[in-house]
Amino acid sequence: MTTIGILARPDLAEARSALAELTLWLRARGVRACLEEKTAALAGQAPADSCLVASGRDMAGLADAVVVLGGDGTLLAASRLLDKEIPVVGVNFGSLGFLTEITLGELYPALESVLDGRSQYEDRRLLRAVLRRRGRPEVTADVLNDVVVTKAGPSRIIDLEVKVGGAFVSSFRADGIIVSSPTGSTAYNLAAGGPILSPTLPAVVITPICPHMLANRPLVVPDESRIEVRLRAARDVDVYVALDGQETFAFTEDDQVDVSASPRRLKLVKAAGRDYYEVLRTKLKWGESGAAGGRK
Amino acid sequence: MTTIGILARPDLAEARSALAELTLWLRARGVRACLEEKTAALAGQAPADSCLVASGRDMAGLADAVVVLGGDGTLLAASRLLDKEIPVVGVNFGSLGFLTEITLGELYPALESVLDGRSQYEDRRLLRAVLRRRGRPEVTADVLNDVVVTKAGPSRIIDLEVKVGGAFVSSFRADGIIVSSPTGSTAYNLAAGGPILSPTLPAVVITPICPHMLANRPLVVPDESRIEVRLRAARDVDVYVALDGQETFAFTEDDQVDVSASPRRLKLVKAAGRDYYEVLRTKLKWGESGAAGGRK
Amino acid sequence: MTTIGILARPDLAEARSALAELTLWLRARGVRACLEEKTAALAGQAPADSCLVASGRDMAGLADAVVVLGGDGTLLAASRLLDKEIPVVGVNFGSLGFLTEITLGELYPALESVLDGRSQYEDRRLLRAVLRRRGRPEVTADVLNDVVVTKAGPSRIIDLEVKVGGAFVSSFRADGIIVSSPTGSTAYNLAAGGPILSPTLPAVVITPICPHMLANRPLVVPDESRIEVRLRAARDVDVYVALDGQETFAFTEDDQVDVSASPRRLKLVKAAGRDYYEVLRTKLKWGESGAAGGRK
Amino acid sequence: MTTIGILARPDLAEARSALAELTLWLRARGVRACLEEKTAALAGQAPADSCLVASGRDMAGLADAVVVLGGDGTLLAASRLLDKEIPVVGVNFGSLGFLTEITLGELYPALESVLDGRSQYEDRRLLRAVLRRRGRPEVTADVLNDVVVTKAGPSRIIDLEVKVGGAFVSSFRADGIIVSSPTGSTAYNLAAGGPILSPTLPAVVITPICPHMLANRPLVVPDESRIEVRLRAARDVDVYVALDGQETFAFTEDDQVDVSASPRRLKLVKAAGRDYYEVLRTKLKWGESGAAGGRK
Repeated sequence: MTTIGILARPDLAEARSALAELTLWLRARGVRACLEEKTAALAGQAPADSCLVASGRDMAGLADAVVVLGGDGTLLAASRLLDKEIPVVGVNFGSLGFLTEITLGELYPALESVLDGRSQYEDRRLLRAVLRRRGRPEVTADVLNDVVVTKAGPSRIIDLEVKVGGAFVSSFRADGIIVSSPTGSTAYNLAAGGPILSPTLPAVVITPICPHMLANRPLVVPDESRIEVRLRAARDVDVYVALDGQETFAFTEDDQVDVSASPRRLKLVKAAGRDYYEVLRTKLKWGESGAAGGRK
Repeated sequence: MTTIGILARPDLAEARSALAELTLWLRARGVRACLEEKTAALAGQAPADSCLVASGRDMAGLADAVVVLGGDGTLLAASRLLDKEIPVVGVNFGSLGFLTEITLGELYPALESVLDGRSQYEDRRLLRAVLRRRGRPEVTADVLNDVVVTKAGPSRIIDLEVKVGGAFVSSFRADGIIVSSPTGSTAYNLAAGGPILSPTLPAVVITPICPHMLANRPLVVPDESRIEVRLRAARDVDVYVALDGQETFAFTEDDQVDVSASPRRLKLVKAAGRDYYEVLRTKLKWGESGAAGGRK
Repeated sequence: MTTIGILARPDLAEARSALAELTLWLRARGVRACLEEKTAALAGQAPADSCLVASGRDMAGLADAVVVLGGDGTLLAASRLLDKEIPVVGVNFGSLGFLTEITLGELYPALESVLDGRSQYEDRRLLRAVLRRRGRPEVTADVLNDVVVTKAGPSRIIDLEVKVGGAFVSSFRADGIIVSSPTGSTAYNLAAGGPILSPTLPAVVITPICPHMLANRPLVVPDESRIEVRLRAARDVDVYVALDGQETFAFTEDDQVDVSASPRRLKLVKAAGRDYYEVLRTKLKWGESGAAGGRK
Repeated sequence: MTTIGILARPDLAEARSALAELTLWLRARGVRACLEEKTAALAGQAPADSCLVASGRDMAGLADAVVVLGGDGTLLAASRLLDKEIPVVGVNFGSLGFLTEITLGELYPALESVLDGRSQYEDRRLLRAVLRRRGRPEVTADVLNDVVVTKAGPSRIIDLEVKVGGAFVSSFRADGIIVSSPTGSTAYNLAAGGPILSPTLPAVVITPICPHMLANRPLVVPDESRIEVRLRAARDVDVYVALDGQETFAFTEDDQVDVSASPRRLKLVKAAGRDYYEVLRTKLKWGESGAAGGRK
C-alpha cells in the first residue's frame, strides 16, 4: 500500500491542523498522501513534495485507502467517488456519526491497522440505481444510503407505482418514496417512520413519505429483487429522484428508477472495540430512559 | 334569502346535468342562482335570466348560501372566497368527503332546509395566517385546513423555530411543519402522522414533516395561542408557505408566519342524521377489522 | 397557612436528610409539618413536637399545601389523596420529571413563595372516572394522567366500544385503550404513539394500544364531552381498568367506564423561570439533533 | 400420497358440509382422510370407513398433506402440530387471510394440484424459540408468527434486555417485545407499529410494545443471528412468553428466550395466480385512496 486519499468537508476549518498532522504522519511512514482539490485548498499551505493533489475522482482512483474528515455527508460524497473496494476511514469532528464513527484520537491507531492489513471492516452494501427514460437507461450510479423520489413543489401529492421482482406491489399517493439500504435506514428513512435494518441484512426498505393511505407501512424486501418506481401522475408538480441526497435528476411521467443490490461494497474501517449497536445506542440515546410520566 | 352561489370543480363533467337541474330547481322556488364563472362555462348553455354569472369573489359576496359541487378541494377553494358566515352545502361526486359529505340525492332536502332556516350546521373553526416579512404583515388570510411551511427542493432539511403564545417551543430539523385546524387534521396532518382532532375542539395541531429528531411528536395547543413559525436555516433550498394547499408564498430566512384562531367560522350544512364520527368511520374504514394474522 | 403535608417515595433513602432539613426549616418559620406515615418511617428519628404523622388521606385533609419528594409516580399518588385545590410542590430526586420539575435546590425558594402567597401555579386539569357495573356507578375517582382499559393476559385482543358525547365513535380491536388528560399525554399515551397536549387545553386524547385497525389514530376531543368505554368482547382474557396506573379494577363485559372533566384542578407550583416547553425539550431531548445520516 | 390430514376450527359450524364434501371427494380419489378429533366431532356423523380420526399430533404425523378450514389462527395451530415439511392448504371461511388465502371454491383445484405434485408452494420460514431457565433449555418450539414477551398485569412497565448475535443491542422499558418472522410481520408486529417483511426475507423484526424510549424503532436483523431476550426487572408484575399467541409460559427474572431461524419451513400451497402482494393490497386496502381532505 502506497497512497492514502484524503477528503475533508470543504468548510471544516477545524480540520486544517489535522490535515497538516496527517500528511506529516503519512510521510514519516513513507506513505504518499493524495489530497482532493478542495481539501488541499482547505489545508492552505503548499503541499509537501510527497503530497499529490487531484480531483475527487482521480484521488479515488489513485488511493489504496481513503481518510474522510467531516461527517456522514462527507463520507457519502467519498463513497460516490469510489468505484473499487478500498478501506475507508471515517473521522467525525464534533459528534459521532453513523458512518464516521472514528474520533480524531482514534485515527492513527485505525490508520496503522489499515497499513498493517490488520484492520477490521464493516462491509456496507451499496444499491445500484438505474434511471430510465422511455425505457432507456440514462443514469447508473451506486448509492450508500438511498434513492428518493419526491415532489419539489409544496402542497401536492404524487402517484407512484412500485414493483418488486417484477410483481406489482401497490401505487402510493404520497409526497414521495424512499428506497433505502440498511446503511440508509438510519437517515431519511428514519425521519419518515421507517425501521432500522442491521447493516449486514441483504435487504432494502421501501418507505412512503407522508402517504395518503390507510395502512401505510414500510416494506422490507430482499435486495436481490429489483425494485421499480414509476411516476403515474405528477399533478402539475416537479418531481425529482435524489441519489444519497447529493445528486438529483428530474423525474417525469415517462421515467422509472430501478434499484437493486450493487455488486460493490463499502469497506468501512471500524474503531477497535466499537460495534454497530453501540453507535446506535449513542446516536438514538437508547440508554436513556425517556418519558414515563409516573409509570413504573 | 334570495341568492344561492354555486361553485363546481371546473373539470367535473358529471356536474353538468346537476347544474342544469339545480338552477331550474332554484328558479322554481323564486331563488336567484349565481354561478361562478368557470362553473358557468362548465354548465355550458347560456344561463337563464334568473341566473347571474360572476367571479368567485363576487359570487361569494352576493350569495346568501353557497352550493359546492366537487370534492374537499373545491370546498376549500369556496371557503377561501368567503369573508362572511353563510351556509355552505358540500356535495360530493363519487366518494364521501370529509367536508363534502352530502350526496347528490341529499342535495335538495339539504337546500330546502337551508331555505327554510331549519338546517343543521357544523361550525368549522378557521385559522388566520399572517405572513410577516421583516416583521411587517404582507399577507393575511383565513384557512380551513392548514398552514404548511415546507421545502421545495428534494433532499434537504430545513430548520424551523416554533413559538406558542410567545414561549419558545423548539426548533425542528425537518422537511417542514404543518399547523392544522381540527378540520385539517384529517388531511395532510394525518398523512404526516398527526392525530385526529374533533371539529369542535378549540385547538391547533403542530406536526413536523419527517423530522430528524428523537421524539418527534405532534403537539396540540389551544387555538387562542398565537403560533409563530420562523425559518432559521434554509440550507440552499427554496422554502414555501402554503395556505390550505392552494396558495403558496416564498418563505425566506427573514420571514415568519403567525397562525391563530380566526373570528370567522365556516357554517357547514350537515346531512340529516349523519354525524362526524360516521364520516370518520367510513373514510378511515374503522368498521373493518384490519389484519390480525391469527390473533383473537 | 399553618400546615404543610409531606409525602416522600417510601424507598427513597436519599430523601432522609432532605426530610430532616425540611422539617427544621418549617419549624423555624412557625409552620407545622404533617408527615405521611411511610414518609415518617423513612425519616427515621422521632418527629419533633411540631410534626404531625398521619395517614396519607388525613395528611391531605390537614394540609394547606403539600411537598412531594420523589418522582412523577409519587406526585400522582399525592394527587389521588387530595380532594381540594391546594398548592403541590413536586421535588425530583435525580432527573427532572414532567410533574416534579423542582430541584432540591429550588425547594426553599418555591416554598417561601407558597407561604408568601406569591407562588406561580400551573393548573392541571383532572379527569373524573366513573366505573359502572350493570349501569350502576361503583367507583368514582379523579385522575391526573389517564384511565386505561387493557387486557391482563398475553396474546389476546379485546373489543372495546367508544362513545363521545353520546355519539358512537368506533369499536376498537386492540390490546386496550388509553383516555388521557393533557398532563397524562406525556406518559403512557406517548409510549402508545399519542400526541402531546398542551397542559391548558380543555381536551382528552383517546389512544388505542396496539390496535388491529387500518388507520389507527389517536383522537383528541373536548373534555366537556363524556367519553364512554365499554367492553364488547373479552375473548377469555381478564380485562382491567387502571386509574393513573395506580389503582386497578376488574372490567367485565357488563362494565363501562365514563370519563369527563373533573371540576377539580391540581395547583402545581412552578419553579421560577421554567416553563412547560423547557421541561418538554429537556425530557424529550428536542434540542438535540437526532440522526440525519448525512442529510443537511 | 395416500393420507390427507384435516383440521377445522372447532366452532366453525359452516365447515360441516364442507367437511362432508371433502371426505367424499378424497374417498372418490382413493385418498385416505385423517380428521383431527375435534374436527371429527364438528363433522358430526360417524366417519366413513376410509376416514381416520386421530389427535392433532397423530393426524400431523400420519398426513402427507394437511387441509386447514378456518382462519389464520387455525393455520397457526396446524403449523404447531407439524414437525415435517408437507403441503398445507389454508382455506378461509369469510374473509381472506394472510395464511388462509384459498377460498372454498379454490380448494379442489388446489388439492388436485397437491395430489398431482404440480402445486405451487410459498416456503414460509419458521423461528425456533428456546426458553431457558437458569441457563437450561426448558421448552423448544417452532413458531410461524412470533415470540412475544409481555407483562400480564395492567399499568406496569418491564425492563427487557436484547442481544443479537451475542452483541448487546439495548435494554427496553416497555410493555413487552415482539420477535417476529416475516410471516408474523402482518400480525401483532403490525399492530405494534412494525414494518412488513417480504415472506422470503431471511430476517426477523424486533418490535418493542409501547416503549418508554425516545427513538423507539423496530429493528430488522438477519434470522441467522440468535436473538436473546432476557428479563431484567419485572417490577411486581407477571411476565409471559407467548409462542404464536397460542402457548404461553411464565417468564421470570432468571429466564431468557432465544430465537433463531428454524431449519424447518412451512410449505404453504398457493392459489393459482394470486401473489403475496395481492393478498397484502386486499387485506390492507392499499388500492383504496384513504383520506386526502382536499389535497391533490
